[in-house]
Amino acid sequence: MASRTPSAAPRAEEQHSATRAPRRRLSVDERREQLIAVALQLFSDRAPEDVSIDDIAAAAGASRPLVYHYFPGKQALYEEALRRAGRELAGRFEESGEGPLSERLHRVMGRYLDFVQSHAAGFTALLRGGSVVASPDAGAVIDQVRRAAQEQILRHLGLPDPSPVLRRTVRAWIANAEISSLDWLADKPVPVETLQPHLVQELVAALTVAATRDPELADRLGEFFAAERPDGPAARLVRDLAGTLASPALADSLLRLATPPAH
Amino acid sequence: MASRTPSAAPRAEEQHSATRAPRRRLSVDERREQLIAVALQLFSDRAPEDVSIDDIAAAAGASRPLVYHYFPGKQALYEEALRRAGRELAGRFEESGEGPLSERLHRVMGRYLDFVQSHAAGFTALLRGGSVVASPDAGAVIDQVRRAAQEQILRHLGLPDPSPVLRRTVRAWIANAEISSLDWLADKPVPVETLQPHLVQELVAALTVAATRDPELADRLGEFFAAERPDGPAARLVRDLAGTLASPALADSLLRLATPPAH
Repeated sequence: MASRTPSAAPRAEEQHSATRAPRRRLSVDERREQLIAVALQLFSDRAPEDVSIDDIAAAAGASRPLVYHYFPGKQALYEEALRRAGRELAGRFEESGEGPLSERLHRVMGRYLDFVQSHAAGFTALLRGGSVVASPDAGAVIDQVRRAAQEQILRHLGLPDPSPVLRRTVRAWIANAEISSLDWLADKPVPVETLQPHLVQELVAALTVAATRDPELADRLGEFFAAERPDGPAARLVRDLAGTLASPALADSLLRLATPPAH
Repeated sequence: MASRTPSAAPRAEEQHSATRAPRRRLSVDERREQLIAVALQLFSDRAPEDVSIDDIAAAAGASRPLVYHYFPGKQALYEEALRRAGRELAGRFEESGEGPLSERLHRVMGRYLDFVQSHAAGFTALLRGGSVVASPDAGAVIDQVRRAAQEQILRHLGLPDPSPVLRRTVRAWIANAEISSLDWLADKPVPVETLQPHLVQELVAALTVAATRDPELADRLGEFFAAERPDGPAARLVRDLAGTLASPALADSLLRLATPPAH
């Protein structure tokens, strides 16, 4: 096992690689990072079962033994690539607390959907759960990303002790974003410019429904709507809803239902 | 392998069972059904890895070899129990097309949450995906149940050719119901009497948001709201939302946003 430590890199392998693509010899850390980056690219474009150690070696301009020198096998490389991807995705959720809430969320969703598109096959394989390379570790990475998303949203809402209904609303919306991304990757029934604001508006609507059971959230939503701009996603939702609900088909019924029953 | 067919049941085992709990000798089909029923009960109450063939044999008043005579192993029994559970759950989604839509959905959700409670451990292990007994077959059962739920909801909406936005809305809400059930089973932060109408109201709200992008759905929602009763879940949502949105904290902002920007 000692000969497998990265500090004892096999010189012949490095030279073999160098003869094929002449370049500066990579340090141990650089080589390790390069292999992870190459693996992440391949696992993003294909399901894990369709990527071999030979594919990774070829794409890295390295030999199969060199890859095995750094990683015990495909599973280890996959899990490391997955951790990197999870960290990168969680990083995309970070957003300044300035400006209208729906515009902040719209920017985050733009970065999220960009990530989803550039890791399409790997994202699908991972979340569909049908991958033979799936592992408890993969589940832990997914859970970490979900928790990061939930914490970021709750942080933007600025309620230090979120109610159970608010937590559930945010968690359910994160599931919505996942499912919607998966379905969207499968056949892209709408352009990203449609999906992105719609997901934002669905959270705004779900928060508003939750606010009927959470007075603290209702107060906070008042502040948020006050800060929204006329061209933002929340304002467009309010206008579209006002238009739809004012139609003859709906207005009379809603007015009748809004009036408390006399009993 | 021939000696493993149910038609050649080992007499000694049946007699052994009979000496412990004297009862009428079960036919081959009855015994098989009994083992599945016992397994389903055990897999409902515990995670699959915490159920052994010995547990199933003991609960069925049978011997370990008898269980193996009917099923090659725990995995096969688990998958059969899962298929039964999936069929039972899908059956609970069936609901007459009569009466207000939110009340139909409320009844379905009552039966769904009842199922979730009576299969708590198994439901959690299956959907958390962390079970070591998970298999592609388990994934197929989950997908079938999700599809059955989606088809039933679309059937009640009565739109023969649902738009992509409507399909996505229903699919996302099914994920919401799953996630919400899992979280609810974990610590029951609210009574079932709160969760049940809230889930119904979340679908009503999500459909209303989807209707802003789907004129056919908007027309259909008009018919549905017209049929809602003042005490139903949809009417309560409309009243609660009217109350929340009319509060000083929200009303002014919403009115401002509802007015189209002058440009």
